[in-house]
Amino acid sequence: MYAREIEEKLTELGIKVGDKIKVSKEEKYYEGILMPRSFYNPDVLVIKLANGYNIGIEWKNIVKIEKVEEEKKKVARVERKEEIQEKHEKTISILSTGGTIASKVDYRTGGVRPAMTAQDLFEAIPELREIANIEPRTIMQVYSESMNFEHYEKMAKEVFNEIKKGVDGIVIAHGTDTMHYSSAALSFAVQNLGIPVVFVGAQRSSDRGSSDAAVNLISSCLFASQSELAGVFICMHESMSDYACAVHLGTRARKLHASRRDAFKSVNAKPVARVLWREKKIEYLCKDCVNLRDKNKESELFANFEKKVALIKLHPGFNPEIIDFLIEKSYKGIVLEGTGLGHAPEYVMHAIRNACEHAIVCMTSQCIFGRVNLNVYYTGRDLLKAGVIPCEMLPEVAFIKLAWALGNFSEEEVKEIMRKNVAGEIVERILYGE
Amino acid sequence: MYAREIEEKLTELGIKVGDKIKVSKEEKYYEGILMPRSFYNPDVLVIKLANGYNIGIEWKNIVKIEKVEEEKKKVARVERKEEIQEKHEKTISILSTGGTIASKVDYRTGGVRPAMTAQDLFEAIPELREIANIEPRTIMQVYSESMNFEHYEKMAKEVFNEIKKGVDGIVIAHGTDTMHYSSAALSFAVQNLGIPVVFVGAQRSSDRGSSDAAVNLISSCLFASQSELAGVFICMHESMSDYACAVHLGTRARKLHASRRDAFKSVNAKPVARVLWREKKIEYLCKDCVNLRDKNKESELFANFEKKVALIKLHPGFNPEIIDFLIEKSYKGIVLEGTGLGHAPEYVMHAIRNACEHAIVCMTSQCIFGRVNLNVYYTGRDLLKAGVIPCEMLPEVAFIKLAWALGNFSEEEVKEIMRKNVAGEIVERILYGE
Repeated sequence: MYAREIEEKLTELGIKVGDKIKVSKEEKYYEGILMPRSFYNPDVLVIKLANGYNIGIEWKNIVKIEKVEEEKKKVARVERKEEIQEKHEKTISILSTGGTIASKVDYRTGGVRPAMTAQDLFEAIPELREIANIEPRTIMQVYSESMNFEHYEKMAKEVFNEIKKGVDGIVIAHGTDTMHYSSAALSFAVQNLGIPVVFVGAQRSSDRGSSDAAVNLISSCLFASQSELAGVFICMHESMSDYACAVHLGTRARKLHASRRDAFKSVNAKPVARVLWREKKIEYLCKDCVNLRDKNKESELFANFEKKVALIKLHPGFNPEIIDFLIEKSYKGIVLEGTGLGHAPEYVMHAIRNACEHAIVCMTSQCIFGRVNLNVYYTGRDLLKAGVIPCEMLPEVAFIKLAWALGNFSEEEVKEIMRKNVAGEIVERILYGE
Repeated sequence: MYAREIEEKLTELGIKVGDKIKVSKEEKYYEGILMPRSFYNPDVLVIKLANGYNIGIEWKNIVKIEKVEEEKKKVARVERKEEIQEKHEKTISILSTGGTIASKVDYRTGGVRPAMTAQDLFEAIPELREIANIEPRTIMQVYSESMNFEHYEKMAKEVFNEIKKGVDGIVIAHGTDTMHYSSAALSFAVQNLGIPVVFVGAQRSSDRGSSDAAVNLISSCLFASQSELAGVFICMHESMSDYACAVHLGTRARKLHASRRDAFKSVNAKPVARVLWREKKIEYLCKDCVNLRDKNKESELFANFEKKVALIKLHPGFNPEIIDFLIEKSYKGIVLEGTGLGHAPEYVMHAIRNACEHAIVCMTSQCIFGRVNLNVYYTGRDLLKAGVIPCEMLPEVAFIKLAWALGNFSEEEVKEIMRKNVAGEIVERILYGE
């Protein structure tokens, strides 16, 4: 229900949810279908525009409202939907974990708080019913910046159970801040995956007219149900426009912008696919880099993560006592974010050599793009001699991988695993222009 | 001198340094001027091609060598150069600090070691004599990954002294790994700068045929002597091609690729200029964002840096005991690399609140691109309430700025300085597409 004032006006004008209306503001007007839910702000009129996108217009800014066309075959439409819901060939799960996609604006403070459930999200976007049989479920309500290894363990187990149920794909609604850490965690924790598991988020909360939630959710559900690929992915806006979503490999993406819709980029790789959601079409950009869908695959769960692992950025003025402290505290793994090709200050070498005797020490690069190579400079060779493992992957991914490897395997196995490609994370060659 | 075998062959063919020659390999040939120096590998023939670029060809791969044309007016040419050297209107200094640009390949191990002096660099690139009166000087020989606050103090004092001497510009040859930390340090340490100070480096060492050192050095000398702008800059390849170099503001750039020539990018900003070195032309992209050259300005030196400052990346599984440790060790400043708009895990909030009572705590974003904004989510507001200072700048720049501010000003002043634009470091608006 909208605010009472709005409901009264709508009744007076004979406008019902589902009708096509024209809403005029001081400077422009919008035409579209009046939507059934205003989510959390009763004073915002939600209209679905012809381009499929929802817009929210504050009631106080509306100067005129007119009915353009009555909703057609309203009852029939609902029935048809119910029917489709059972009739689709593919069934996918939406697991909601929290984050902006499942948030609302708190109009008292202006801040955003997690609130919506998977069911709410599902109901807010009727297009989802046309894609597959969908089972929405809220498994946690956490802002992604507060995710921890316990959450990864739970998420992995939930995904594993959904797979056992026989779903064709899984969508995980997730906060964007650390979505790439979570997608990496799932990439390692669930091995031999035969279906797509697609992380999706929003940069603007779902109860805002300008939210990217709908396009991202529709695209990720399309990919989860129809893609020929299996694995863990991130599906988010490809550019600033609503035209398409990019699908990134879960171990190769990074949030590279704090606020833009296309914040996620594949690093040292192309996205594996794009989803042209309006045409319900998937364009594959790199089918060879990913496993194909195979529901007969028996997934395996390795859901443990070692908590005594640290991610440390090296820089001028870095104090090696931080590394000494970690070793004193019996950390089992340290991922260093070196400079350039993976370098460390000479004045930190002593601490690194000592750390290598008590823990697994891996080297990545804070450059983000490009490869790690400890063979070019003599300082790199010193790191190799000390026992540092060069990791040709994103620092964030190396950190998650090391915590995962230490949680499930022996120290000797971990050393091998960190050098080996487990889930597409290793940069084997750089595509120019990336 | 080339290796004896080569020198003998050249004598036999009547070829002298400066002659135009044609060198054939198994599959192709090169025509150009035989260069006087092979730098450090006597078995590589160095030829200047018509495009002005030097190429190195291993002697053992050469199947045929012919003289095409004798050098013209050899003696006259040298005299002219001496003359020009004294006649230029502008005088700049090249201060060499080490790094790849001043490195050579150690042919025993295949690794790269620092070796060349500023004088060596200057002599290796005769084009530099045509740009300005140049005074090369080696002030240190350090790989940039091993730079520390002491080096920044020395570098700042050296720059300050050069300014006192009245030079028109300063070029600092520097390793690329941490060049953006150094350029930030100098941006803060030398205030009221009336001339350009240009950091320059190379991604391949100067004794290699494929080195980018020459183009970068020529471009930075052009910019240092002729630019209308003053301030601290980074001048490196604009793209993979040799066509132009980009000039970035010293507080707005970051090494974003481990190995590519165009590793440096302006973040949340455009480069301030491009140098079309072959045409000796500077194209200004943002004159308004930078101060204009003014030799009458009285520079001020603030060369102290507080060493008890840390740069800490937050992430899922981050253990707050690291922050507790820093406070125990009496750190005076902590720059956090938060997620998204600048967020911290809820389970780290207790440690952050405590840290704020004993140190200055600043928040930046690990997204790199985009702004920090602690007002959107309630977790961000909690950080503000705790006393965390949002810093709309690159994490690396915030770290250097905090160390600098704490080294020169009172705690109350530092709090103000961190929110205030000092050297163009604050992101005031985001240009789309950046």
